[in-house]
Amino acid sequence: MIEHQKALKAVNTYLSCLVNSDYQMIVSLYSNNATVEDPVGSDILRGGDAIKAFYEHAVTAVTEAKLTGDIRVSGDEVAFPFEITADLGSGSIKIQIIDIFRFDSEGKVDSMRAFWGQSNMQM
Amino acid sequence: MIEHQKALKAVNTYLSCLVNSDYQMIVSLYSNNATVEDPVGSDILRGGDAIKAFYEHAVTAVTEAKLTGDIRVSGDEVAFPFEITADLGSGSIKIQIIDIFRFDSEGKVDSMRAFWGQSNMQM
Repeated sequence: MIEHQKALKAVNTYLSCLVNSDYQMIVSLYSNNATVEDPVGSDILRGGDAIKAFYEHAVTAVTEAKLTGDIRVSGDEVAFPFEITADLGSGSIKIQIIDIFRFDSEGKVDSMRAFWGQSNMQM
Repeated sequence: MIEHQKALKAVNTYLSCLVNSDYQMIVSLYSNNATVEDPVGSDILRGGDAIKAFYEHAVTAVTEAKLTGDIRVSGDEVAFPFEITADLGSGSIKIQIIDIFRFDSEGKVDSMRAFWGQSNMQM
């Protein structure tokens, strides 16, 4: 069971680091052998190097990230709905996302899955 | 890949059946050997009999169920945020939930996981 306060702290750190382009802090939320599936259905990334490379790229476009509802803490996991705004150069886009973090016994995220699709993107 | 329209139809059917106490229709959304984990972290139910017994009980209290944001269709899965209102006899309670449905190749739900915890319940 992950405590609500610990899950909320990880979620808030994650969202603020997306905006602040602090990909190294994001990587530090993850365990060494964690997996990232973003979006769900795409190839699963595993381990620090792959995850670092992913976020180093991903954070560059994000200008806003905010929760759009309660975080749902359940067992070792948390699900949370959020919206990011990304700057595409030619304009900005908003994406509605739901992420799942699973925590290991040390409170590190060992699995992240991000649910979003074409219908969740709005120019 | 599940189509957006098929996922949305399953979600809307699910929510309306919770309110209408149509647990048999809910069971028909699932494949024969499907699993239900509600809430995430609890024992996983498997198969039609276990799932039917679960919903036969669960639907009795639900008086309202509505989406509180976009459904997120991603790969073979959909994540959706919703709120239910349940009548406890002594009063009603609202619960903020995020469910994940995974669909098989025939469009049946073969895995459901429901994320909610104590902090998502409001009297």
